[in-house]
Amino acid sequence: MNEPLFADNDAATDAFKQAFRRHAAGVAAVTALAPDGRPVGFTATSVASLAAAPPLVTFNMARVSSAWPAMTVGNRVAIHTLGPRSRHLAVRLAADNSVRFDGDHWSPGPHGVPILEGVTSWMLGSIVEVHPVANNAVVVVQIEVGELGDEDDALVYHEREYHRPQKL
Amino acid sequence: MNEPLFADNDAATDAFKQAFRRHAAGVAAVTALAPDGRPVGFTATSVASLAAAPPLVTFNMARVSSAWPAMTVGNRVAIHTLGPRSRHLAVRLAADNSVRFDGDHWSPGPHGVPILEGVTSWMLGSIVEVHPVANNAVVVVQIEVGELGDEDDALVYHEREYHRPQKL
Repeated sequence: MNEPLFADNDAATDAFKQAFRRHAAGVAAVTALAPDGRPVGFTATSVASLAAAPPLVTFNMARVSSAWPAMTVGNRVAIHTLGPRSRHLAVRLAADNSVRFDGDHWSPGPHGVPILEGVTSWMLGSIVEVHPVANNAVVVVQIEVGELGDEDDALVYHEREYHRPQKL
Repeated sequence: MNEPLFADNDAATDAFKQAFRRHAAGVAAVTALAPDGRPVGFTATSVASLAAAPPLVTFNMARVSSAWPAMTVGNRVAIHTLGPRSRHLAVRLAADNSVRFDGDHWSPGPHGVPILEGVTSWMLGSIVEVHPVANNAVVVVQIEVGELGDEDDALVYHEREYHRPQKL
């Protein structure tokens, strides 16, 4: 061990980001319909399984996100796992939110929720819990339906760049 | 798209696991002290940043875990990011919980919480929220202190095996 972090409060945010850059994450995309019917969504590196029976997924998000108005209990959400071939979707859904759904890279799925093309899987379910914490929130979704897409590696985000997993 | 999933409830658990095998995850280790003072911990593929200011982390866990009694608001938890060189720690902390802390791969850190050797970073903080959902729980930790370890790749879990990220 060599570099003490969080030595003072001013440095804590930088220190935290520095530590998290040592971590890798699978890349997913979350989509939903906003209350006005517009498609909303974002690239998420926090999607995780919570339980398999019943099938429950969690993700974290900022409450300033354009998708936040869609995050109400009972509303439907689609979670897509992405592979290297759909890296353009990860880039698109992390870009300016006004253009994220311009194009033919998606179509309306069950309940009208946007389903993205070319993903390795999608899972659609109902939001069962929303836990706001500071300016962010943890969202819990119970999956109801889904499909596997064509096989591909997983898409991994690490050190601010996209990767694929390489077996040790 | 080719394989519909969750066609019936009996198949839903398998379908969910199948979809999540398309996802990759960074590997972390969570440690704490149980109420009786014993070190407890587990390998986690659900560790995610929730906010950077204040620094907040989430992870998911089973409430049958040996570490569950330690997950009370105010108790301290250490979150370690792992690299390929500390893959043995990931294996150890996913093994039989009675032997996870046998050996010199850890030492007591702040507040006596076990800090693992050779990790790429550790972050220690207080549990600020615990949300039980079904037989599992979402735990939110506010980080207070930490250190960066020697550099290494990130350790990635995918298709039930350990990987490192390879740049696209």
